[in-house]
Amino acid sequence: MRLLGVDPGTHVIGWGVIELQGGCMKLAGCGAVVAPEDRVVAERLAYLADGLRGVIRRYRPDVAAVELAFFGKNASASLRVGESRGAALVELARAGIPVEEFAPSEVKKAVTGRGAAHKRQVQCMVGALLGCRPAPDPLDASDALATAICLAHRLRMRQALARPVRGRV
Amino acid sequence: MRLLGVDPGTHVIGWGVIELQGGCMKLAGCGAVVAPEDRVVAERLAYLADGLRGVIRRYRPDVAAVELAFFGKNASASLRVGESRGAALVELARAGIPVEEFAPSEVKKAVTGRGAAHKRQVQCMVGALLGCRPAPDPLDASDALATAICLAHRLRMRQALARPVRGRV
Repeated sequence: MRLLGVDPGTHVIGWGVIELQGGCMKLAGCGAVVAPEDRVVAERLAYLADGLRGVIRRYRPDVAAVELAFFGKNASASLRVGESRGAALVELARAGIPVEEFAPSEVKKAVTGRGAAHKRQVQCMVGALLGCRPAPDPLDASDALATAICLAHRLRMRQALARPVRGRV
Repeated sequence: MRLLGVDPGTHVIGWGVIELQGGCMKLAGCGAVVAPEDRVVAERLAYLADGLRGVIRRYRPDVAAVELAFFGKNASASLRVGESRGAALVELARAGIPVEEFAPSEVKKAVTGRGAAHKRQVQCMVGALLGCRPAPDPLDASDALATAICLAHRLRMRQALARPVRGRV
């Protein structure tokens, strides 16, 4: 099963694909779509959406995880990140890929055990969990992979809960 | 020249097209794309984007205006509206339509003379300016038309400023 993690930012969309086989996770690919600086908002978003569409076509993921970013009380920054999320979510929906959303603290906790971990700690643990040396780069890509790993945990948990329990009652 | 106004909300995208000929504005069409209640976020956004794509294909606007909505300090609401804006902006960019952004107060002022006007006042003035009785409905559509009218004012202003001034110096 292929899981795509997506980390949408205003000018960059980080992405990471992991392969989930039995109890094992394997890195399939990762990277970041970086919009050129000189584009106006609409063109920048189309560039990011086109880049993500390319990733989807190449890796054909079965399910996707997107980070649900908030910026405290900064409504302006939230609006701009929301635009990028919207562009990404439409691409995923059009490709028929189910999407699950995760809060940043949930993602960080899933890979480091701490909901307030720094990006470098997340990157380091993502590398360790996927057996990659050096750890996946850039940070947008490792953040996206962390989101995919978080989804992998959730899927395993669901499988475990769905399994019938054997034993005496 | 055809101007498309877009008013993106979380579940609805209002749209309005006006025809600008010389000094006259004429209503070409307006409406609202309303996403079904039961859709998950990504599918809802794809539904809204598909609806707007249909409007673009039907009316082939030359230029578009999108309202730049803020929700004070409500970062969560801004994120959700941002998603809808992102979906709309990508459609416009892919169709090669230049986009201009306007603050809500700027739009309201352009049609009513007051930056803090109510939606019903905006609707009423949009009807009067475009010579429509009854005024365009629903409110999402009249808001979108107000944004298009705001763009029309800006374009006329630019034309006037670009014209050479005759007379003695």
